[in-house]
Amino acid sequence: MRLRYKVWLEHEELGKAFGDGPLELLDRVERSGSLRQAAADMGMSYNKAWHLMRKLEKAIGFPLLECRSGGPHGGGSVITPRARELMAHYRRFREQVAQSLAELYRRNFADFGWLDKPG
Amino acid sequence: MRLRYKVWLEHEELGKAFGDGPLELLDRVERSGSLRQAAADMGMSYNKAWHLMRKLEKAIGFPLLECRSGGPHGGGSVITPRARELMAHYRRFREQVAQSLAELYRRNFADFGWLDKPG
Repeated sequence: MRLRYKVWLEHEELGKAFGDGPLELLDRVERSGSLRQAAADMGMSYNKAWHLMRKLEKAIGFPLLECRSGGPHGGGSVITPRARELMAHYRRFREQVAQSLAELYRRNFADFGWLDKPG
Repeated sequence: MRLRYKVWLEHEELGKAFGDGPLELLDRVERSGSLRQAAADMGMSYNKAWHLMRKLEKAIGFPLLECRSGGPHGGGSVITPRARELMAHYRRFREQVAQSLAELYRRNFADFGWLDKPG
């Protein structure tokens, strides 16, 4: 037996605003310098990734990506400083959530003898 | 902006083993004394509720319901003592999860000024 969970940030009207998927996409943009490449690596169309970014930006209220034109590789996408800040906060939040839920699971269900049994 | 989450207990092979839905169903069985009534109140077929109970019992490894036959109302379903214990632990776990996640959300995202804004 094990604990499973999902967490995400949600805008009251616009729906999902940030979560593990967007974090992974932004991480990949940061490494590759390209939203197109990041989307492809996650099996997502560029069109879908682009719309997702616009929706997230609207929900959180600040830009996540900036376009850089020119340069030796013909430009690409760059993470904004506030996006980087959000990513760092969300990553830390996710780690603390994982620790806290594992501890609460142990504390509340240890009596049932499930915890170390496979299955 | 707000935090959303889902938590549940999962058996490695059998899938979902306990969560908010099963807790509500058992709560209703406890109050009504009838799985059929409890299922109907949740808009679920008796057949579905019955299969769900058998699956949960298999996953957690002990019986949740006992049938009582006879009596003035023609018998019904009764929660087992271990089911009651599981329900109490799960309810406490859910409360602690809610408190902990609200606190972690405040701690990590207070800087973004989202917390008290509607939307």
